[in-house]
Amino acid sequence: MSFTEFPSRLLENAVNEFASLPGIGRKTAFRLVMNLLRRDSGEVRRFGESIIRLHEEIRYCSNCNNISDTEICNICNDTKRDRSLICVVENIQDVMAIENTRQYRGLYHVLGGIISPIDGIGPSDLKIDTLEEKVKSGGIRELILALSTTMEGDTTNFYLYKKLSKYNPLITTLARGVAMGDELEYTDEITLGRAINNRNPYQQ
Amino acid sequence: MSFTEFPSRLLENAVNEFASLPGIGRKTAFRLVMNLLRRDSGEVRRFGESIIRLHEEIRYCSNCNNISDTEICNICNDTKRDRSLICVVENIQDVMAIENTRQYRGLYHVLGGIISPIDGIGPSDLKIDTLEEKVKSGGIRELILALSTTMEGDTTNFYLYKKLSKYNPLITTLARGVAMGDELEYTDEITLGRAINNRNPYQQ
Repeated sequence: MSFTEFPSRLLENAVNEFASLPGIGRKTAFRLVMNLLRRDSGEVRRFGESIIRLHEEIRYCSNCNNISDTEICNICNDTKRDRSLICVVENIQDVMAIENTRQYRGLYHVLGGIISPIDGIGPSDLKIDTLEEKVKSGGIRELILALSTTMEGDTTNFYLYKKLSKYNPLITTLARGVAMGDELEYTDEITLGRAINNRNPYQQ
Repeated sequence: MSFTEFPSRLLENAVNEFASLPGIGRKTAFRLVMNLLRRDSGEVRRFGESIIRLHEEIRYCSNCNNISDTEICNICNDTKRDRSLICVVENIQDVMAIENTRQYRGLYHVLGGIISPIDGIGPSDLKIDTLEEKVKSGGIRELILALSTTMEGDTTNFYLYKKLSKYNPLITTLARGVAMGDELEYTDEITLGRAINNRNPYQQ
């Protein structure tokens, strides 16, 4: 079934909006819209409003740029967390991924992207100034650079190191090595090489 | 990444709404919402409103029950179409599928479902009364039953035949046979049996 003609402009508009989402084709969009059409009016209004409200009312923590319903996010407000430890991440998905490990008790700093000349994203497009201010004003013991292990991530790590090392915080990066469940024969040579060089004493 | 904790209730609400759609899991829902968050405010408002407006303003053609922006749909309003020919379908997706073949120039009648005792759908839940009125009032030469080739479709065909044949329209169903591109060895025996019994003279 191709969609040359829709019986209704309203239907066509809704399908077009859904089809503009990543990974949603026109057939899937149509199926989703038909599902919404079968629902109660109140339910559909709640769906639409949840999107509009999200965009209009969402705030970003003024300290770490994490997404938040309040001026300062729950993590920055948590007095039990170590304020001398800052984990630098690309986006809020990364904050959530690290939070879900339940292994980290410091604060975050969300850059809002990584340096990527191909996409036209330079250091001035990222929240680097506010990170520098934090480090400059002292009290930061360690800065964990938890960026993607890509060329752009490495570039950003290098830029941040050059810019912030003069304030003398300890600057670390995430451990790299063989992931849980990986088979050695399918692990790429760079990862495997690093895993050999950074080998740890065996613990029972 | 599991989602035990969201940094924002607004974000969580929007993700939950998307995850309520068929075939959309929580990870996909999150990805869609993050895509919306990166867009302009006007664009997101348009998205949300397209859903709300669709549900609140959509109408169903008072003649054929097809979806429509107006009292009578474009198909029923088209004076070039054969009004003595009615194709009975389950839903508007089927109308669109048949329209896209560009082979049909009659009108439609959308039942809004098929008889399915398991799902608690009986004849009174479908738009059968209005179909009977149309046939009863005369002027209908042929009724094409274009329902699914399932047990429910067959039940509905039988019910409609029993109810409407007394008004003496010609009642037909879609041809059944081997689909374009099908290989015979993988075609089920019922379809293949019917295709043999309903064989046509070879045309060059």
